[in-house]
Amino acid sequence: MKLDLDDIEAARVALPDSVVLTPVLHGPLGIWCKCENLQRTGAYKIRAAYTALQRLTAEQRRAGVALSSSGNFARAMATAARDLELQATLVMMESTDPYKVEWTRSMGGRIVFCEDRYEARYETLAELAQQGLTVIDHRDHPDVIAGHATIGLELLDQCPRMTEVVIPASTGGLLAGVALAVKSLRPDVKVYGVQPSGSRACVESFRLGQMVCVQTDTICDALTASSPGRLPFELMQRWVDDVIEVSEEAVRLAVKTFATEAKLVVEPGGAVGLAALLERRLPTRPGTVLLVSGGNISPERLAEILA
Amino acid sequence: MKLDLDDIEAARVALPDSVVLTPVLHGPLGIWCKCENLQRTGAYKIRAAYTALQRLTAEQRRAGVALSSSGNFARAMATAARDLELQATLVMMESTDPYKVEWTRSMGGRIVFCEDRYEARYETLAELAQQGLTVIDHRDHPDVIAGHATIGLELLDQCPRMTEVVIPASTGGLLAGVALAVKSLRPDVKVYGVQPSGSRACVESFRLGQMVCVQTDTICDALTASSPGRLPFELMQRWVDDVIEVSEEAVRLAVKTFATEAKLVVEPGGAVGLAALLERRLPTRPGTVLLVSGGNISPERLAEILA
Repeated sequence: MKLDLDDIEAARVALPDSVVLTPVLHGPLGIWCKCENLQRTGAYKIRAAYTALQRLTAEQRRAGVALSSSGNFARAMATAARDLELQATLVMMESTDPYKVEWTRSMGGRIVFCEDRYEARYETLAELAQQGLTVIDHRDHPDVIAGHATIGLELLDQCPRMTEVVIPASTGGLLAGVALAVKSLRPDVKVYGVQPSGSRACVESFRLGQMVCVQTDTICDALTASSPGRLPFELMQRWVDDVIEVSEEAVRLAVKTFATEAKLVVEPGGAVGLAALLERRLPTRPGTVLLVSGGNISPERLAEILA
Repeated sequence: MKLDLDDIEAARVALPDSVVLTPVLHGPLGIWCKCENLQRTGAYKIRAAYTALQRLTAEQRRAGVALSSSGNFARAMATAARDLELQATLVMMESTDPYKVEWTRSMGGRIVFCEDRYEARYETLAELAQQGLTVIDHRDHPDVIAGHATIGLELLDQCPRMTEVVIPASTGGLLAGVALAVKSLRPDVKVYGVQPSGSRACVESFRLGQMVCVQTDTICDALTASSPGRLPFELMQRWVDDVIEVSEEAVRLAVKTFATEAKLVVEPGGAVGLAALLERRLPTRPGTVLLVSGGNISPERLAEILA
């Protein structure tokens, strides 16, 4: 399991035109924002979905893929699989929001439900693997991380004067991939991960220097990993400067600020970087770039935060 | 009172870097959107504010300017005047939303209140003119329209394959200016204006071939002109293909669709173009470009539309 700059450059070249070179816009506080909320499917994960699916063998493509996600990765995988004419099977817990289930189905994704236990998802995936499907574990798959890391290469082109990049973290794959890409070419740039206080797996693991497992309870429904991925954690230790924590309240304020000041709809998990600046957990500098990872927030939740 | 392509090109060259070359993004239905909601001050009017203020004589600059607006133009003028170190006086009716008053004041704008009658605003402006201030009537000022029209030149560069441009209309200045710029260089492109059913001054005037005055009652608080401007109307008759009407309900749906599908906060007046496509008042073609004019909607109003 390895990953280097060549892999990332190859992933970038292979992305189809339908994966957008998202703009870097002046956001709140005048800070530059890399707007992956404006990406196709509303989040950065379409990059990884394409990268992983394009690298399958012809035989694997025929058999189809399976993964466990009900959120942005499910959305991205169903979309990319439909484009590439292969079958994606999504394992979701029975309690999954019916809106997410319907959306994934409408994109041609096949849904397999499992019990409402974290481990049940991986038990079900193991069964699907036995049936011949290729399981893509987004937490630890080098192609997935290479896909995420294409954002780092774009940042190097789009923001030549950047001095810091601030990145949301859950399993740490996005953080690790972008850090690897950016620091390999610009070692002077600082790379920070951010987690909400209700989901601190990377914060704790980074601090202790070993992977820990935590309980999570956060408004950031895209940042709920109970532990970092193994490969992300390894890369993080080498390439990331720090992983910091923000309050749940600051995340809500950041979502509202994005909407009112920058006219951008950002999901809670995508807004943790701004939360870190608002709470002064990180300094606001002209060279700071926030990675705004997604905008998939339900209208009801957004309305509740705005009101 | 004239306006030609040279004026518009001069205006474009003179815009400062702080006026953003706004991105053209893939919006809902896959339609291209020129995102002036992502413009500085949240709407396109900063272009006109700069253009008008930069063209003042040194003496006029010293005496300062006066205008009547409580919305996007007030915001833009206060901002540009502060940048250019001159005094902008904003005439607002006593009933103006205190939030807008405070915001304008915080940008250094001086506020003069008048009675809650439409005409009272122009009586107060006449008094300020007598005191030596230069009155900028945004409805009919060629420099204002030249500023708006800079968007047309950007569209020609950014969207070489456009076949139609769809533009919100109130006094018709934005519509007329962009139409003049686009059609002077690309006569094959169709240019359409859109108004909500509660504010039909341009719809009626264009249809009748003469300026009419109407009552307005619309959710689009940036599109409330009771009649077109004279110069805009003249230009519109020459350069615009049609001015169409959309329902207020379609406007609300368009605001919600922008937020949920495109992750963009768009004010009702900026969403009328999408409303026209959603209601099939205009066909949706791959070469259609929507001019998304602004994103200054209150969090409360946005929450109400989303919920």
